[in-house]
Amino acid sequence: MNNSLSEKVGIVGIGHAKFGKRSDTTIRELAHEAAIPALEDAGNCADKIDAVVVGVAGDEFAGQGSSGAVINDYVGMAGKPMFRVEAACATGSAAVRAGWALIKSKLASVVLVIGAETMTQVSSARAQELMARAGDTRWEYPFGVTFPSYYALMATAHMHRYGTTREQLSMVSVKNHKYGALNPYAHLQREVTLEEAMKSVMICQPLNLYDCCLISDGAAAVVMANEENARKLSDTPVWLNALGAASGEMMISERHDLTSIAASRIAAEQAYKMANITPADVDVAVVHDCFTIAEIIAYEALGFCTPGEGGKLIQEGQTYIGGKIPVNVDGGLKAKGHPLGATGVSMTVEIVRQLRGEAGSRQVGDAEVGLSHNIGETGQYCFVHIYTR
Amino acid sequence: MNNSLSEKVGIVGIGHAKFGKRSDTTIRELAHEAAIPALEDAGNCADKIDAVVVGVAGDEFAGQGSSGAVINDYVGMAGKPMFRVEAACATGSAAVRAGWALIKSKLASVVLVIGAETMTQVSSARAQELMARAGDTRWEYPFGVTFPSYYALMATAHMHRYGTTREQLSMVSVKNHKYGALNPYAHLQREVTLEEAMKSVMICQPLNLYDCCLISDGAAAVVMANEENARKLSDTPVWLNALGAASGEMMISERHDLTSIAASRIAAEQAYKMANITPADVDVAVVHDCFTIAEIIAYEALGFCTPGEGGKLIQEGQTYIGGKIPVNVDGGLKAKGHPLGATGVSMTVEIVRQLRGEAGSRQVGDAEVGLSHNIGETGQYCFVHIYTR
Repeated sequence: MNNSLSEKVGIVGIGHAKFGKRSDTTIRELAHEAAIPALEDAGNCADKIDAVVVGVAGDEFAGQGSSGAVINDYVGMAGKPMFRVEAACATGSAAVRAGWALIKSKLASVVLVIGAETMTQVSSARAQELMARAGDTRWEYPFGVTFPSYYALMATAHMHRYGTTREQLSMVSVKNHKYGALNPYAHLQREVTLEEAMKSVMICQPLNLYDCCLISDGAAAVVMANEENARKLSDTPVWLNALGAASGEMMISERHDLTSIAASRIAAEQAYKMANITPADVDVAVVHDCFTIAEIIAYEALGFCTPGEGGKLIQEGQTYIGGKIPVNVDGGLKAKGHPLGATGVSMTVEIVRQLRGEAGSRQVGDAEVGLSHNIGETGQYCFVHIYTR
Repeated sequence: MNNSLSEKVGIVGIGHAKFGKRSDTTIRELAHEAAIPALEDAGNCADKIDAVVVGVAGDEFAGQGSSGAVINDYVGMAGKPMFRVEAACATGSAAVRAGWALIKSKLASVVLVIGAETMTQVSSARAQELMARAGDTRWEYPFGVTFPSYYALMATAHMHRYGTTREQLSMVSVKNHKYGALNPYAHLQREVTLEEAMKSVMICQPLNLYDCCLISDGAAAVVMANEENARKLSDTPVWLNALGAASGEMMISERHDLTSIAASRIAAEQAYKMANITPADVDVAVVHDCFTIAEIIAYEALGFCTPGEGGKLIQEGQTYIGGKIPVNVDGGLKAKGHPLGATGVSMTVEIVRQLRGEAGSRQVGDAEVGLSHNIGETGQYCFVHIYTR
């Protein structure tokens, strides 16, 4: 793989809090649970950190304004340059992107990136309201649109145009639960059968309960470093070689096509070009499966299959380990959970684990190239990262 | 001035919405009011923008979750890579820092940075609660600490140790109102007499009403570009040559000294070192005067005088135009207003105006080197930028 930029950025430490309903803890403690292992993993480099980026999507969930400051202090980083990054459900990946930019710009040489969110400490109704308020509060939210309904529109359009089936949606859920059961950090660590997934309660036609990701608390952290420091701090740095990003129209009513998310395609093209690879070169991927249809649409945007063939890809089992392109073998948002600010950083953690060969029973054999894909809202944000070992 | 980094980052476009109680508008419209003039000022370069950074401090003020997406779409930037940056009251400067990093990292070549906040569309009590919640909600907020009381502690300590007087605090207010009266974008465009400022209602001993900045709506925007594009897009680029940043302990009870803010000193030292200049080289500065005492403490942190001499500096008139170092000649947070996410970007706009020689009746003669200083909370964040023409 060629990298047109001269100096590489390595990921040298990873940490991951247990995702779940963490009523035992607070956002600062969750962040700590992820950040300290990440610093230890990176050769106990706390004193070498010269910038911190915190990803938290919504201060309202934890009731703490400007929560980056609380987290930064609690993990022992008071004094260091720090800001918070937010990009809705893609907050964590935006934070990793900002960390990469700080290093490449030489404003920093070793950066701690923390993503965290506590979502279960408000009522379920309040959590749903806060998420829905990330939709347009002038023109969509007041009319009752919520995220399940946005993605239900996409599922309906995809089924209509391409013949994607209800069963194929459930197959995504079955796969992600299978791998979630093997991931000790996952919120739900149990398998579901296709029958269970098919028969669960309807949330928003055609999406049922098992098509929807979880409302979780959680945190994840990574330590990133410039090439010189990366080689010093780790024997197994994973290089973040290429980054793509794009945004999309605010209102779903402005979109020309509901069967795809344009920002995903644009961000993927940028990343592949920067990495100088094709989709076929990717050995393992984590994609944004906030709803099962989102994973199918992501397969297509990322070029793992052609548009309309996503349903077939899961039906053929091609996104399982051993298939053409294993996807979300950490359980995905669906089973691992989706604490908004943590998700993107957790994706990076999973790819690093896979490229290091440390994923245990979920290991993709001989993984050399990894990809993470993280969407905010319905594609108002998208970030694609490509990693190599 | 020497810059150790090879390629410069220029500011090539500025735009500023009218700060004030803007009940006529929404956050997206305020952002538009700033962003479109900035794009026009930068040679109508909307099509050249390849990244957007949005600074909004608190989604709760506008009731719009993930407000970057709404703003990005409304100013016509859907499609472009975008994320939001937040650093409490220093959000705008953190956004400028992120924009600089995106350019230097070569992830982008021309970046639109927008800072915006609507604070008057919730009740005054709610606005105060939201701001107070940026303090530690576990250990300080529950006991009734608000930002006037944090800064009142600093004022009391400064008066006790250095003999700073009530009158000197009011002199800061008189100066900033004098210049706010000359700034068409300022929230309060009227002068106050020293007597008025001294006699206003007590808010939190020793800080009275005229020691406190305003609760305002507003937005500001800048277009930043790499050197090649900066020279193409503008005949008068202003170079952002040096950036310093630091954070501080979360709780004021953890601070060793209440007469200064350590993060300010650290960030200033970094910036001066990177710019290879001394405080005496600065021709014009904007500093974080959320309370009058904060401006006095900033004089000292930035090296415009020695610690303890800040009160004397304003008393001698040295921070007026014509003095040793003109400070906040745009009215400062005190008279111009402090829409949280907008403030840091507005500071950059003011320095660009001054270095271009476009500040009209507020112009500092022959200004070549400018500095902006922006604090989040009570120093949990600080950003110092140094600019040259």
